[in-house]
This record gives sequence, structure tokens and C-alpha cells, in this order.
Amino acid sequence: MKITRSVRRLEGYVPGEQPGSTRVVKLNTNENPYPPSPACAKVLASFDAGRLRKYPDPEFSKLRAAIAKRFGTTPSRVFVGNGSDEILALSARAFVENDEKIASLDPSYSLYKTLAAIRDVEWIGDDSPSRRSLDRRVSLFLWTNPNAPTGRLAAVSRIAAFARRFPGVVIVDEAYADFARWNAMELATAPRNKNVIVMRTFSKSYSLAGLRVGFCIGPEDLIAALYKVKDSYNVDAIAQDVALAAFNDRAYHRRTVAAVVRTRNAFAQELLRRGWDVEPSDSNFLFAKPPARAGAADVFDALRRRRIFVRYFPGPLTGDRLRITIGTDAQMETLLSALDRITG
Amino acid sequence: MKITRSVRRLEGYVPGEQPGSTRVVKLNTNENPYPPSPACAKVLASFDAGRLRKYPDPEFSKLRAAIAKRFGTTPSRVFVGNGSDEILALSARAFVENDEKIASLDPSYSLYKTLAAIRDVEWIGDDSPSRRSLDRRVSLFLWTNPNAPTGRLAAVSRIAAFARRFPGVVIVDEAYADFARWNAMELATAPRNKNVIVMRTFSKSYSLAGLRVGFCIGPEDLIAALYKVKDSYNVDAIAQDVALAAFNDRAYHRRTVAAVVRTRNAFAQELLRRGWDVEPSDSNFLFAKPPARAGAADVFDALRRRRIFVRYFPGPLTGDRLRITIGTDAQMETLLSALDRITG
Repeated sequence: MKITRSVRRLEGYVPGEQPGSTRVVKLNTNENPYPPSPACAKVLASFDAGRLRKYPDPEFSKLRAAIAKRFGTTPSRVFVGNGSDEILALSARAFVENDEKIASLDPSYSLYKTLAAIRDVEWIGDDSPSRRSLDRRVSLFLWTNPNAPTGRLAAVSRIAAFARRFPGVVIVDEAYADFARWNAMELATAPRNKNVIVMRTFSKSYSLAGLRVGFCIGPEDLIAALYKVKDSYNVDAIAQDVALAAFNDRAYHRRTVAAVVRTRNAFAQELLRRGWDVEPSDSNFLFAKPPARAGAADVFDALRRRRIFVRYFPGPLTGDRLRITIGTDAQMETLLSALDRITG
Repeated sequence: MKITRSVRRLEGYVPGEQPGSTRVVKLNTNENPYPPSPACAKVLASFDAGRLRKYPDPEFSKLRAAIAKRFGTTPSRVFVGNGSDEILALSARAFVENDEKIASLDPSYSLYKTLAAIRDVEWIGDDSPSRRSLDRRVSLFLWTNPNAPTGRLAAVSRIAAFARRFPGVVIVDEAYADFARWNAMELATAPRNKNVIVMRTFSKSYSLAGLRVGFCIGPEDLIAALYKVKDSYNVDAIAQDVALAAFNDRAYHRRTVAAVVRTRNAFAQELLRRGWDVEPSDSNFLFAKPPARAGAADVFDALRRRRIFVRYFPGPLTGDRLRITIGTDAQMETLLSALDRITG
């Protein structure tokens, strides 16, 4: 057989629909409704295409230095990936033996399960992880905080307490942390940290999902292991420059994040007024249950027919809710009007 | 232990030096001396940065369709990676069980050995591969053609004969094929092909090493397996557009490839005149042995002191030669003058 057993069994991660038309309201993949910083457009417009004939900096030195400086740590504790998805895939290679296991919260980012399957190791879901609850063979725990699709934010002390007792590596996936009240970066940068990696992405709060840049900070030996297993040139020259420009425009970042949070809070109130059950969210989406008379799957379908895309995850833990990305105020009004016609 | 045994043992692939200064003659990483097609600069200058807020097309549909059309096959037989390095890493996941092995020509691209080490499987080097010469557990054979660092080109019939008898997957890494007299793409696109994948890159002949785009063509089931194990969005939105622009500018591609081949042939003559032993090359580099009185390592060091960078691979199979990337005519003249001073 040419294809491995695990890959033959695999269904593959199914990303949210990317409808071809732009005449839709797209609230299904947690993209930012605002464009990236104008500094990104400037970098693109002035980028010397002649530079592309050469390989990019394999160690993304400028971006890495800027990230290190911002978080008060050294570049040797910073790694950058082709999206944080790549960092996750590399971690599954660097931190998990063939006979070990990967665990994560459940429900959570469905890619984790897929990663374990690709790696041909067992995946364990545990929504209240502790040393006692986990199998001894678990060597990598992926803790999304705030979690998706719930939007729930765990206390830093809780993650810290777990990590102290956990013998493997804990990756705190903070894709949504810029929209949250707090984050766990202090665990990653702490000098005595032995096993916590905190991961961020440019895809959400920096509006650069199309660019594929994520980064993480952690203990020097774990970061060095990621460098060992990465492709030589995993982040292209344009992406390095554009991400750096976005990272350095702090005022724009703060402004657009604040706009999303404001819209999120107002939209949550609107859903609550309409009888929805809304999980408190620290992210750029809401996880909400329609009023009793309407099933989540039916509302999803009815919205889709109106060219409004949200996300529906079937299954016992998630099937009664919809995950709704926070768009512009205008998009949320369009959605509310549609919901009023569907469920009203 | 947090880091896997195989990764702890690993030294990691060491890419060729990327000197920070531009005041060097850089002939060490097989980059193209000419800039990418002017169409690439146009795409960059007019790229709408606002598009970056959305995830890129996970299936790179336009680029894939163009590649399929050019080679007379269907998009379902085409895969695109974040550089062909990513395609190699994905292949090691999709086509090799934990107890199987990876083989390649030897000497060849040193990354292959590293990939096997990361994957924690054995690597076997075999410069004259046949069913009989190979261990039964080898499930992936990486055949670089033209090979690096030698520049040698194998006959298509030889690869075909090997593939027919080999029960695993054969990846023909054609990174340098555009500089060669022939290529093996017909094996990949043949309707009855069961196990040959032909891989190309935009890094060399298209002058886009900084962009990270490679592609491959093969049987539908093997290509589908690569889609299963890839990150959801492995090729960013800008890279998809810029690569497509380069791919469509066939006249420019033909012209710059012809210029490199012309310089290569003239430079080979110059080295031969000076008593070097030069492997016939079908690529954009030469693999050449200095005249008896000068050791390759010494010439390498002497050139480096003159800020001329070529590549030296220590070891019994490669240590008596230098791999010299073909630059512009002016760069090769600078190199020849320096060589005359060093060895003359």
C-alpha cells in the first residue's frame, strides 16, 4: 500500500466554506471584518519583487526580534510559522513520540484531532484537564484560550497549575487572545518556564488570514526543537515584511480590536433580547443557541439560503448552537434582520 | 522528556549561507541571477491588501488549473506546497509508515536525510537504485533529476523502469528540470501511472525562491493523500497570485532559462580550460573539482574571503568538489578572476 493506514482512514480537516462570491455576509471562519493596517498595503506596494529571486531569511530575524521585544523576551524563545497551523503540525512532530498521545479541550479547534490522526497517535478530549484526568502517555496538551467554538476564557492560574503538574508540553493556543480580557503570555516568557508555549496568529486580530503567519513563545529548548523540524524556509519574504508592518502599527491594531469587541458585546445583547442562550465570549465570535422553537441546524440552513454564512458544528457537544463571527455593525444588523424573519 | 528522541538527535538541515550584505557574489544556493517576471512586480503593486483579511483559497484553484492545463492533465492530479520542501515533508507523512524507510540517490539533496530523521525512519542512499538494491521496507524513493549537487540527468526510461518494479512511491524532484535537456513529466501525467509524482518548484527557473511555492503532479489517490495531510491553508493568497503571474509569462521564463544555460555552458568551458574536472550539468549549477594542486575546501575558503560564496559539501562523495551556482556573466567573470588569483 502506498498511502499510510492512518492517512487512508483520515477524512481531513474541513475548513469553513469560502464562498466564491463577494455578495455574501461571511461570518463563518472568524475572519476580521476590517482590512489589515494600511502599513501592510504600503509594504506590498513598495516591495521590490527582485528580492524574491533569493531565499527568504530562514530565521525571520526582524519579525522575531520585534516579537521578542514586545513581549519582553529574547529572540531565541520566539518561533514563527506558516500560520499557527504549521506550528501545531511541527509540535506534533517535535513533542510526540509514535506511542504517545495528544490531548486538547473538547469541544475545541477540530484540527487538533486531525493532527493526531495524521501523526497516527491517539487524541483525547478533556474539557477539565488535570494530571489525574489525563492518560500518562499524553505528551502534548493543546489548550485553546479563549476556546473555540465556545469563546470561554480560562484563568491563567488554572493553566499554570495544570502545566506545573503535566510532564509534557502545553501549547496555549491564543489565536483569539487579543479580543480577551487577559492572556497567558506571562507563563511563556517566565524564566523558569519549562513546558508552556503560548501561540498567537496574525490571522485574526491583525486581519492577515490570507498571509499565513503565526508565532509562538516558549522555553528555549522547545523553540529550538521547532526550528529543527521546520522546513528550511517556512515563512516567505513578503509575509515576513507584511506581518512586521502590521505588528508595528499598534494604534490601528488597538482600534480595530476595540471595534470588534464593541460590536460583539452589542450583538450579544441583541441575541439575548431575542431569547438566545449566549456563551460569554472573549473572542471575535459568539457561540449561541437559538430560542427553543428553532434548531441550530435549521437556522444555519435558512441563513445560508439568504447568503449569510455562519458555522454549524454537528455533534452532541456543539450541535445545538451556532458559531457566529463578529463582522461589522452593518453585517450584524443584516444578520439580525434575517434571524428575525427566520425565528420571529 | 518533552522533545522526541529523534528530534533530540537531529542536527537539522543547514541551508546555504544567506549573507546579510548585498555586496557579495552569491553563488551558493542555486538562486536565479535574474529577477522574476515583471508580471510578478505588477501583481504585487496592484494586490488589494484588504483581501488578506480572508483566508486564502485552500485549494489554490487558479494556479492548480493553470498547471494542469500546461501539462495536459486534470487539477485533481496537481498539488501545490509552501515550497517543494513542504511537499517532501507531507510525503514523508502520507507515504511512509513508522516502520518503513525513505531512500534517495546519494549524494543528493541533503534535506532528504533530515526528513527521514525528523520522521524517525531510516534513510538509505542508493545511487543506482533498482528493486533488488533496495530494502523491502523502503516505501518512498526521492529521485532528484537532474540531481544535486552533481547536475547529472538520468534517462526517463531508467526512472520508469525503476518505478514499475518499485512497490512504493517515487518522487522525481525536478527542481532543476527547466534547465535540462529532458524531464520525466510524462511519467506523472500518464493515465496508467500508479506511483510516480513529479515535483517542480518556482524557486529556481522562475526566480521565486523568496515566495515559497512548489507543485507536483501524480496519480489522483496520492495527490488526494497530500491534500489530506496538508495544513488547511498552506499557500498564502499573495504567493498564489504571484506564482500564477510568473507561470503565465512563458516568454520571460524561456528567455531567462536560456540565458542561464548559455552562461553555464560557457563557464564550464572556462573551468575545463583551467584544468578543472567538471561534471556535465543539466541544472543551474556546476559541480566541479579544482585542478590537482588546489583542494576544494581551500578554494571555498579563499573565495569566501573575497566575498564570493559557493557551496562546499564535506564528505567522501562530495568533498573534492565545489557546487557553483550559475549567476550572470559578470558574476562568473568575477569568480573566474578570483579563481585565477587563487589557483593560478
